[in-house]
Amino acid sequence: MIQIFTTGGTIDKHYFDANSEFEVVDSLLPTLLQEANISDGYELTGLMRKDSLEMDDQDRAIIRDAVQACEAERVLITHGTDTMPQTANALAGIDGKTIVLTGAMQPARMRHSDAVFNLGFAWAALKLLPAGVYLAMNGEVFAAGQVRKNLAQQRFESTSS
Amino acid sequence: MIQIFTTGGTIDKHYFDANSEFEVVDSLLPTLLQEANISDGYELTGLMRKDSLEMDDQDRAIIRDAVQACEAERVLITHGTDTMPQTANALAGIDGKTIVLTGAMQPARMRHSDAVFNLGFAWAALKLLPAGVYLAMNGEVFAAGQVRKNLAQQRFESTSS
Amino acid sequence: MIQIFTTGGTIDKHYFDANSEFEVVDSLLPTLLQEANISDGYELTGLMRKDSLEMDDQDRAIIRDAVQACEAERVLITHGTDTMPQTANALAGIDGKTIVLTGAMQPARMRHSDAVFNLGFAWAALKLLPAGVYLAMNGEVFAAGQVRKNLAQQRFESTSS
Amino acid sequence: MIQIFTTGGTIDKHYFDANSEFEVVDSLLPTLLQEANISDGYELTGLMRKDSLEMDDQDRAIIRDAVQACEAERVLITHGTDTMPQTANALAGIDGKTIVLTGAMQPARMRHSDAVFNLGFAWAALKLLPAGVYLAMNGEVFAAGQVRKNLAQQRFESTSS
Repeated sequence: MIQIFTTGGTIDKHYFDANSEFEVVDSLLPTLLQEANISDGYELTGLMRKDSLEMDDQDRAIIRDAVQACEAERVLITHGTDTMPQTANALAGIDGKTIVLTGAMQPARMRHSDAVFNLGFAWAALKLLPAGVYLAMNGEVFAAGQVRKNLAQQRFESTSS
Repeated sequence: MIQIFTTGGTIDKHYFDANSEFEVVDSLLPTLLQEANISDGYELTGLMRKDSLEMDDQDRAIIRDAVQACEAERVLITHGTDTMPQTANALAGIDGKTIVLTGAMQPARMRHSDAVFNLGFAWAALKLLPAGVYLAMNGEVFAAGQVRKNLAQQRFESTSS
Repeated sequence: MIQIFTTGGTIDKHYFDANSEFEVVDSLLPTLLQEANISDGYELTGLMRKDSLEMDDQDRAIIRDAVQACEAERVLITHGTDTMPQTANALAGIDGKTIVLTGAMQPARMRHSDAVFNLGFAWAALKLLPAGVYLAMNGEVFAAGQVRKNLAQQRFESTSS
Repeated sequence: MIQIFTTGGTIDKHYFDANSEFEVVDSLLPTLLQEANISDGYELTGLMRKDSLEMDDQDRAIIRDAVQACEAERVLITHGTDTMPQTANALAGIDGKTIVLTGAMQPARMRHSDAVFNLGFAWAALKLLPAGVYLAMNGEVFAAGQVRKNLAQQRFESTSS
């Protein structure tokens, strides 16, 4: 069984004409997984709906508690990209679980988005990697603590050298 | 020959991760028309890239001048929805041209959007209607001066009764 | 009230892995109209699910009877493109109704298709044209009896000159 | 460096109105990878454009030769689903390379398809798995020789128990 926790971020943003803004809405993940012919074997829980720039220590404590409390050994977390590395750090030291964070640079509801590829990529990382905390973005797997977002280049990169 | 003027609005908005905002970008109309097997018979000119809430009298004067100056007798204007009726009013009294304004509640770059339907709908209105100024939105044609946007219901409606 | 009759054709084809073939399935029109913010004001009836090359005189009699029997004065027919002109001819002489045939060169279920544009285009033609039988395809309106499909160029063209 | 070999299959099928058929065309993979923000680090070679039911021993010899001859240690093969397990078997015994086969039940050019998820999933499998031959489909990784397509259920399943 895979446990999915959604926390918001660009991946689940939708456009609202009434205020001309993008806001986080219901996760599209169940729909995207169904299109990939995956209809069971996972549980999805929405923890919060935040742009990751608005996340604070309390939010990260909620995520950490939820990950620790769940029975699943494999946990996927969708998350805004801006502070994804910080949340990964905040999950360090949880034993016996493979934890993968992913998200998207473009909302899954756009015609062209990295969301579905990232979801597929993260899904495989979740199934194949040993216990630990990882980021799965732009076709690369990063260990927590060794990754940063390069805002100018719009991609994640390793901080180890 | 059909003249298309783009002015911005939701229809041409795109999401930018760097600032977590939607902004008006290059019009998708040539791509959308090509998908509809329409590759010639029109000219497209970008006049501005504005959210229609930011449009003022000067912008409307620019649009009016452009419509009057162009040779085409059939003019399509893509425009933000919030002040589309005002711009339609500002075009009143131009002789001998069929002028149709359209736009979208959801960006054309979204997976699900009213943009392509509205474009097709406006295209037919442009070809079939006599000279005058019209709004073509949510499957209805409205004469300029007789239409308002109902923000709560997210649709346009007639003000005549 | 608008009456929609679906008869099959490319517009409603879907891919089936089991037999590696495209087949006509449930019409996507209600979904497409909803995306265009049109959720009422029409009724949809499925008459048949045929590739239009397989349509015969009996099928056309069924369509004609349905059009004549319905109460609506505005009738939209989705149809395969190959014999759309023949079916339009078979509808000649029905009094007091505006009848518009449309379809698509690419299934509506494809990422890139002319289906939604054609639907919007046909919708406006239906609302604006006087009684008669018309084809609405590739951004042009054709009167029944004056149109043919140019298979090589993949578009419809007028037979009048 | 990742080497991609495309061989055809549903994933790259496109609809042609002229003959009302789906046929294998240029691979959409470079476009899909670019949407996933992956623009380098791989080379793509088209080996053939076949429905996998039409593949014979000679085709499989061509694929095997290409895999062996390429310099890359990580090889992704896109392939029709019907005989994907057979081709995987035909690649057994190639030393020192991680070889992953994937494909799709729905063409990548459809609005809703498993293609992008499968591509992302296979991409991670390719990066994380040791040398060997694998199938990556419907969110599962299978070792060559231990997998079959369940045509009725439209999914792959393990033959080991």
